[in-house]
Amino acid sequence: MNVGIVGGGQLGRMLATAGLPLGMHFTFLEPADGACARDVGRQIQLPYDDPEGLDALCKASDVVTYEFENVPVEVAKAIGRRRPIFPGPEALRVSQDRLIEKRCFESLGIGVTHFAAVDSLAGLHNAVDTIGTPAVLKTRRFGYDGKGQFLLKTQGDIDAAWAALGKSPLILEGFVDFKREISCLGVRSRDGKTAFYPVSENQHREGILRVARPHRRDPLQSMAEDYTERVMHRLDYVGLLAFEFFDTGNGLLGNEIAPRVHNSGHWSIEGAHCSQFENHVRAVAGLELGDPGLRSPCAMVNFIGNAPAIEALAKLPGTHPHLYGKSPRPRRKVGHATLIAEDDGTLTERVERLVAMLPPDH
Amino acid sequence: MNVGIVGGGQLGRMLATAGLPLGMHFTFLEPADGACARDVGRQIQLPYDDPEGLDALCKASDVVTYEFENVPVEVAKAIGRRRPIFPGPEALRVSQDRLIEKRCFESLGIGVTHFAAVDSLAGLHNAVDTIGTPAVLKTRRFGYDGKGQFLLKTQGDIDAAWAALGKSPLILEGFVDFKREISCLGVRSRDGKTAFYPVSENQHREGILRVARPHRRDPLQSMAEDYTERVMHRLDYVGLLAFEFFDTGNGLLGNEIAPRVHNSGHWSIEGAHCSQFENHVRAVAGLELGDPGLRSPCAMVNFIGNAPAIEALAKLPGTHPHLYGKSPRPRRKVGHATLIAEDDGTLTERVERLVAMLPPDH
Repeated sequence: MNVGIVGGGQLGRMLATAGLPLGMHFTFLEPADGACARDVGRQIQLPYDDPEGLDALCKASDVVTYEFENVPVEVAKAIGRRRPIFPGPEALRVSQDRLIEKRCFESLGIGVTHFAAVDSLAGLHNAVDTIGTPAVLKTRRFGYDGKGQFLLKTQGDIDAAWAALGKSPLILEGFVDFKREISCLGVRSRDGKTAFYPVSENQHREGILRVARPHRRDPLQSMAEDYTERVMHRLDYVGLLAFEFFDTGNGLLGNEIAPRVHNSGHWSIEGAHCSQFENHVRAVAGLELGDPGLRSPCAMVNFIGNAPAIEALAKLPGTHPHLYGKSPRPRRKVGHATLIAEDDGTLTERVERLVAMLPPDH
Repeated sequence: MNVGIVGGGQLGRMLATAGLPLGMHFTFLEPADGACARDVGRQIQLPYDDPEGLDALCKASDVVTYEFENVPVEVAKAIGRRRPIFPGPEALRVSQDRLIEKRCFESLGIGVTHFAAVDSLAGLHNAVDTIGTPAVLKTRRFGYDGKGQFLLKTQGDIDAAWAALGKSPLILEGFVDFKREISCLGVRSRDGKTAFYPVSENQHREGILRVARPHRRDPLQSMAEDYTERVMHRLDYVGLLAFEFFDTGNGLLGNEIAPRVHNSGHWSIEGAHCSQFENHVRAVAGLELGDPGLRSPCAMVNFIGNAPAIEALAKLPGTHPHLYGKSPRPRRKVGHATLIAEDDGTLTERVERLVAMLPPDH
């Protein structure tokens, strides 16, 4: 089975690392020099929408997937006319636009914070009047890792927010005073079977995920699965979908989905019986899904900006480094480690010890 | 860290798969077309002793290792004059010749079956007189997977054995009526620290390993570790060493060593905290060793000649397929699966179920 992937970053690298033992071969369409997936497959170094690149990708592939959610919908459709592409273009259309995404959640009975489309300064004033403050103004498209967001603490922040983001289509969202951020990773096969990973509790700093830790028997597991299942069913989804939620202490509010493997599931490589990466390629290739259950308590610590030296990481018990082969740069995800332990207390100690070793990230 | 590997088969492929997440890059010196390690590194497609190939390998590598034991000692020494090479040439010299190997074991106080060098038909008669029958005549060099061996049931088999093997330097070994074949995998770091995997019980058929299964608290674990430690110390060994033993019911007899990762340790990818492949590259790269302890009951089933379809393998619970990307051929190792279970009984069922699914291998 030859699998084509649009994008060639660390997610592509880990997808291929999971798929190679299943007898798959991988081709990446990725314009960047030094793409870190090139170690585990062939790179077509052309832009994502380059006709020659898309032609080469299709020729090299029995099936196509992608590793980032900003693949243009038209590109996905063009690929889909020649090769099966999973997840389908509808998943991209919905997840690329926060307004469409929130409306999708609402229509499925999934709770969301108050929100309103904003297309003008007057519209922003109206939205703030309706939603109140604090609120978060966000670009509808192309936001990630906290980029394209502006927190309005009071009405007095309106002009600054508009100056920062007003050139793009926007959405204003009521600020959610959450207890926890959690994500649910679901996977759906070509024949509609689903499986769900234990929900992960995620700690962010400056908009970037730092630590993710799954919980056995989380009280919100079944609600998170139910919501994720609804979205996957609506989108006729195939592959791994990540759904980020706010736990408000009074149930879950849907925040956003990513139609791909997700940073908050990286612990699954060593922590689950079948990783999110393997399950995604299994789904895309039409294979039976694997077991998403935990093998032991586990967590993931991200390496942002720079990673500790491998010599130091290798000395830590229960620590599985994953370095992506990327050069250091502020706020860049250059690697992670999965931490494993026999019990939750030891795991917490290991997480704290590793976090204390992290180099400054900017 | 750039790691060069002499050889580019499935062992090289799995070494690189283990080393890539540690930030390593791999270059393989491998003359064969379609080398299955090419998916995870760069292949220099030249003979193992080609000066241009060796020069390119050294230029590409900070450290060099190998994935088969028949690397010519002179080649290893030539590499060693330019780059660190682990395990060192002495490990190759000893393991390449069954006579030198057996004498090494003897000198270390490790029990071996009776043996004698055989260089002529008259010498074979003498050896059979001394050792008796049944006995096994073996080529001293280049034997593997049961090749280069002839079982003498009676003195009447002497002429046939000589006709089959007499062109090579030989060793006659007393036939060992063993209870079990087990192997001990040890790893030794550059600074002399050692770690040992639980001993694996190995089932062969027609000279080829079929099933390997490690045992927690095997009664012969400490004896196997002691013997393996003695050999590693004698050879000033760095890396993963496999030591195959006969369990006679009255202790262990040393059979042979392999100065490399070994088929009887493939279960360690999912079954141990740190796989034999990762521990080998850790040792070679000068990193701290990882934990060789078991995560759960596990076993390995080899795919010989051909593999079951991936669609069928994906349906089996607790089953992790590893297909090497090699075309089917009688007696060829084309893949394996690691089986994992919560308890030993379920594991046995899973092994039996998979073995029953195997296609005929010739």
